[in-house]
Amino acid sequence: MSENTTPSVLVISAHAADFVWRAGGAIALSAQRGSAVHVVCLSFGERGESQGLWKQEGMTLDRVKQTRREQASAAAEVLGASIEFLDLGDYPLRVDEAAQDRIVAVMRERQPEVLLTHVANDPYNRDHNLAHETTLLTRMVAQAHGHDRSTTPLGAPQVLKFEPHQPEVCGFTPDLLLDITPVFDVKVKAMQSMSGAQGHLVQYYTDLGIRRGVQAVRNGAPKTVTHAEAYQRTFPTVGEELR
Amino acid sequence: MSENTTPSVLVISAHAADFVWRAGGAIALSAQRGSAVHVVCLSFGERGESQGLWKQEGMTLDRVKQTRREQASAAAEVLGASIEFLDLGDYPLRVDEAAQDRIVAVMRERQPEVLLTHVANDPYNRDHNLAHETTLLTRMVAQAHGHDRSTTPLGAPQVLKFEPHQPEVCGFTPDLLLDITPVFDVKVKAMQSMSGAQGHLVQYYTDLGIRRGVQAVRNGAPKTVTHAEAYQRTFPTVGEELR
Amino acid sequence: MSENTTPSVLVISAHAADFVWRAGGAIALSAQRGSAVHVVCLSFGERGESQGLWKQEGMTLDRVKQTRREQASAAAEVLGASIEFLDLGDYPLRVDEAAQDRIVAVMRERQPEVLLTHVANDPYNRDHNLAHETTLLTRMVAQAHGHDRSTTPLGAPQVLKFEPHQPEVCGFTPDLLLDITPVFDVKVKAMQSMSGAQGHLVQYYTDLGIRRGVQAVRNGAPKTVTHAEAYQRTFPTVGEELR
Amino acid sequence: MSENTTPSVLVISAHAADFVWRAGGAIALSAQRGSAVHVVCLSFGERGESQGLWKQEGMTLDRVKQTRREQASAAAEVLGASIEFLDLGDYPLRVDEAAQDRIVAVMRERQPEVLLTHVANDPYNRDHNLAHETTLLTRMVAQAHGHDRSTTPLGAPQVLKFEPHQPEVCGFTPDLLLDITPVFDVKVKAMQSMSGAQGHLVQYYTDLGIRRGVQAVRNGAPKTVTHAEAYQRTFPTVGEELR
Amino acid sequence: MSENTTPSVLVISAHAADFVWRAGGAIALSAQRGSAVHVVCLSFGERGESQGLWKQEGMTLDRVKQTRREQASAAAEVLGASIEFLDLGDYPLRVDEAAQDRIVAVMRERQPEVLLTHVANDPYNRDHNLAHETTLLTRMVAQAHGHDRSTTPLGAPQVLKFEPHQPEVCGFTPDLLLDITPVFDVKVKAMQSMSGAQGHLVQYYTDLGIRRGVQAVRNGAPKTVTHAEAYQRTFPTVGEELR
Amino acid sequence: MSENTTPSVLVISAHAADFVWRAGGAIALSAQRGSAVHVVCLSFGERGESQGLWKQEGMTLDRVKQTRREQASAAAEVLGASIEFLDLGDYPLRVDEAAQDRIVAVMRERQPEVLLTHVANDPYNRDHNLAHETTLLTRMVAQAHGHDRSTTPLGAPQVLKFEPHQPEVCGFTPDLLLDITPVFDVKVKAMQSMSGAQGHLVQYYTDLGIRRGVQAVRNGAPKTVTHAEAYQRTFPTVGEELR
Repeated sequence: MSENTTPSVLVISAHAADFVWRAGGAIALSAQRGSAVHVVCLSFGERGESQGLWKQEGMTLDRVKQTRREQASAAAEVLGASIEFLDLGDYPLRVDEAAQDRIVAVMRERQPEVLLTHVANDPYNRDHNLAHETTLLTRMVAQAHGHDRSTTPLGAPQVLKFEPHQPEVCGFTPDLLLDITPVFDVKVKAMQSMSGAQGHLVQYYTDLGIRRGVQAVRNGAPKTVTHAEAYQRTFPTVGEELR
Repeated sequence: MSENTTPSVLVISAHAADFVWRAGGAIALSAQRGSAVHVVCLSFGERGESQGLWKQEGMTLDRVKQTRREQASAAAEVLGASIEFLDLGDYPLRVDEAAQDRIVAVMRERQPEVLLTHVANDPYNRDHNLAHETTLLTRMVAQAHGHDRSTTPLGAPQVLKFEPHQPEVCGFTPDLLLDITPVFDVKVKAMQSMSGAQGHLVQYYTDLGIRRGVQAVRNGAPKTVTHAEAYQRTFPTVGEELR
Repeated sequence: MSENTTPSVLVISAHAADFVWRAGGAIALSAQRGSAVHVVCLSFGERGESQGLWKQEGMTLDRVKQTRREQASAAAEVLGASIEFLDLGDYPLRVDEAAQDRIVAVMRERQPEVLLTHVANDPYNRDHNLAHETTLLTRMVAQAHGHDRSTTPLGAPQVLKFEPHQPEVCGFTPDLLLDITPVFDVKVKAMQSMSGAQGHLVQYYTDLGIRRGVQAVRNGAPKTVTHAEAYQRTFPTVGEELR
Repeated sequence: MSENTTPSVLVISAHAADFVWRAGGAIALSAQRGSAVHVVCLSFGERGESQGLWKQEGMTLDRVKQTRREQASAAAEVLGASIEFLDLGDYPLRVDEAAQDRIVAVMRERQPEVLLTHVANDPYNRDHNLAHETTLLTRMVAQAHGHDRSTTPLGAPQVLKFEPHQPEVCGFTPDLLLDITPVFDVKVKAMQSMSGAQGHLVQYYTDLGIRRGVQAVRNGAPKTVTHAEAYQRTFPTVGEELR
Repeated sequence: MSENTTPSVLVISAHAADFVWRAGGAIALSAQRGSAVHVVCLSFGERGESQGLWKQEGMTLDRVKQTRREQASAAAEVLGASIEFLDLGDYPLRVDEAAQDRIVAVMRERQPEVLLTHVANDPYNRDHNLAHETTLLTRMVAQAHGHDRSTTPLGAPQVLKFEPHQPEVCGFTPDLLLDITPVFDVKVKAMQSMSGAQGHLVQYYTDLGIRRGVQAVRNGAPKTVTHAEAYQRTFPTVGEELR
Repeated sequence: MSENTTPSVLVISAHAADFVWRAGGAIALSAQRGSAVHVVCLSFGERGESQGLWKQEGMTLDRVKQTRREQASAAAEVLGASIEFLDLGDYPLRVDEAAQDRIVAVMRERQPEVLLTHVANDPYNRDHNLAHETTLLTRMVAQAHGHDRSTTPLGAPQVLKFEPHQPEVCGFTPDLLLDITPVFDVKVKAMQSMSGAQGHLVQYYTDLGIRRGVQAVRNGAPKTVTHAEAYQRTFPTVGEELR
């Protein structure tokens, strides 16, 4: 769909760490296969998702943001992705027109085949919802032939929603169990990069990876699959295969 | 997942013609690629879906069934599939234990990777619902290690629901738009085999194929795709691809 | 749609009293306008819905059934409907093939434009669910051209679900608020005919009628509407009016 | 409900062409019956839905908007409707308070019995969602007795959602199949007025009209019905008829 | 969960009267048991819900607001709750950042175990939806460790949605039927305080209380329960009891 | 609600092991608090859920059933529950009238306040669905005043659905996270009793217990909660508490 010869994946993450816990396997897998994976962090998660940092004496908002930037950049590097930070604030996240324009520009430049982002309706975390809405909105703008005639309109990338913390309460129904067995060690290393902020989550998401792996086998994956990540598609798949 | 070297597809069709209108493209496509496709017709649709035949003077139930058997067999041959008829009656269809056992035996013998059948809740046609329920029930039995120790348990085939006549009213949400462009002429020929009974449907399902083809392109298929069939999955897909 | 010159309504009621509380207004309204309204009671509700009768000393199943028959017949007469009782048992209701055949025969003879019955999924009362399923199944059979060539196939009557006792828990979403203001006194009289068994319900369903009436006005009915009954359609409406 | 003697229909269209493809039949039908039909186009669809125009050399945003204005005006005239353009931009559409006030004023002046607009949740096109939200919001404001005491509060018009391009993916479940057979030639003529921009859609929506017409007959419409448009209601219908 | 020794309930009401009709019983019950109940009225409902006042000659917006403030304050006092008015306007309500900050501050100061507010999707009244969204958004901000380091982060209070006027159309499915029998006389008195504006609703909500009470008994409450209010939870309950 | 002085819980388990993995914590917790907990196993899971046993040479159906009986009895004893086996067959389970009557008799004798069973719609396992349907059907019969006048009608026990293997695919949305921390060691011991058949599941369900425990804390449970089980209610809760 793109004249670009390198396949491309774009991740829209509400907070600096979301892409690691929820989509680290997909990112590493895509990167290993030669896709150019790029992460856009809408915020650092500086207020709402940096509880560990705030426990340190004398912590300031700027230092939290700086630490989160460093951690997330390190994690992205481990996963094999490039990353940028829009610094839009969190709890609540606010996405203005300039930020929308920036994301549209990234989409047009990179021409991703797949977008990864949050679910539409997380009652615990409205920043996630806004990241979802922003993804669909900017995808639409990037497709418009009359928008910025100097760049190439986007095709029709799938939007895959990654797994929220409490999937059933968020209406998340996985329809893709992605085998991340070959890259799980990479995901663990990336999760450890974030662990200053939210260390207890490494074990939690390791267990989740195993759990989704067991389910993948129950749904027909070979028994060699031991770890998986769950995703929910937004659009129908298209193709020539009956699966 | 099967030791069988030939890939296999199994279609559970409530009435003799359903598999043609709703899944003819998928069947032809799979057959052309070397899958062994088999159709189990639970009934001939002799009472409820043979309006054209009943308009002929002196028609009897046996003659309707015989005609439908011939038409459906011809259609299956065109599509490249084998076919069998369980003759369980229609309007209403009734599935007894012997019929369940037969379907389980077919599943175990053929070891299909994919099952095709009707939706779960069609308010217009309860035979469709029973075909759906029968598919899920026999799939479960065929998987049981303690069932008939002389045959091999089934793996975990996907169950794809094909498109009902009024999709939205039946809660049908397509998540696979299958490109049937290369075999559409074959599907038309198969549909014509059934046309004595329901001839006006050939045009109807040709238009539907185009409509689903346009939607496939809107969802990212190449513009060379002109015809598609819509399916809804029952289980998550598993795999290594982010799509 | 029917050659029959009198319009016709058919009510499939799981228990002897359901049609009174839940659809008495619709029945009276249709009858007053010249429709031939017929009620098929699948059971008398003798075990599960006759608590008042069972409190009387020396009560027997036969006497309960006889009393319920008399009460329901009286209520039907007040409402202007004919009635028949299939006596299939309740708690649980069981519908055999003979009963299905009888209902199909009634549908073919009466050619109703509208069917009234219960919701599909009442977690409190599985008899209601079976009445719903039976209605959709027999409607399908009655439509089949190959079924009983001596009678006329049924058209495509709407199936209106009437309001269950706890609507939200049963997934009931009203999309028709029927103005029963002109016949509400008739409904009250019919409810009083059933009151030996379930007397406290007269006030309850009077209040409900007022509540649904207020909602009708909120949805655009004239302020002269004071009482309504709620219904949920199974199929799309068709017609020439944009409403 | 209104003191206005002429019945009135109001269409809120996100882009200049939506009202033609999706509701042209309803508009023509209402106009022929004497309703005053008015279309409010929130944008011209200049960026996102004018792909054909942008292919012309030297095209500018102003020329696209002007062409779309002319085409949509011509189409409205064919259909028998008046039209106005709020020029709020597209991809993304932005609706400010002034625009909301204008729509409220139109509602109060015209006192429509029916509002036509987009679905609530189209994942492909967030402009459609905003048109939906704007319709419900302005309807609410127009009903408020304390808003602008110099004009008459709105009654409780039904909000009919018209069919999106990919209905199932948008959660669209039609509950009204409107017979547009008598005006289908008018709709075709109106569609042709828009065809400079999106010509291939004329055939597409003609086929869709036939498809919905077939479904209308399946749901009980007379066989003379050959074309229909699908709508989904937002509120319960109210009335005296059991249908 | 809070170090605060007094349990606390917070009600976010879109308009001045909503908390009375929809949650008056819960408020009175909580207050009688020693909870500190506080009501935040986002608007007075001055434009959209004061039809009675606007019928009085020479009425002005300020006088409507003043009257509503007095009535709502009186009702809150009857119920045993404190109250504040943010005066954000109604029809439509608009919630700015300052208002969000104020609500966050209230949450942090009061540390409520339970939040009461409107449903997420009321097609009749978008102010209700915004009150819902605002509640979830401010709850999230109030939980953030990095927000306003001088106050204490909020725990994880349940969000209970109270019953909208037309519950089924708003997707409201009650999962808590709260016994308000002991305080129903208090609720009536509070409703009467509001009755200048919307007097006919006292009888309406009394009948509704009885209706929900009957349903409570059907779901296992003792027969001494005669009045109830319906609520829908947003989050799972947690605890040691199997109920 | 019962004159029985001992509170009572009844578990309807499709196969011999389901109650251990899915509800072992709830059972142990209830038993420790003095409830009389009884488990009805509809089948031994002899065909479909005894893969480990079938791998042993010379295994027969009778030996599988006997082993499963012993394991499940041992597990029940560990949990503190009584148990009975109806031996109705599995894959597929078939529930006849005699079995329904037996369950009704158990319900009337034991007068449980809570019923535990499977979800309504598990696409992987139709035996689970039948167990669910059987529970609702027998609950209804047990409530009927006219059923078996020599025993006492059942009240209105809540029906709690326990967690299926792939919750989202089964439409399972937990609304009760039950703290099973104090009894988790007991659950582990009971799971080990079943481990001959399905040993790998002990770790799997231990991890799941931790996962649900983390979620419980996120939903407001004290941090001392480390293990939980998830349940979904069928009916609204009733009571005097705002939670």
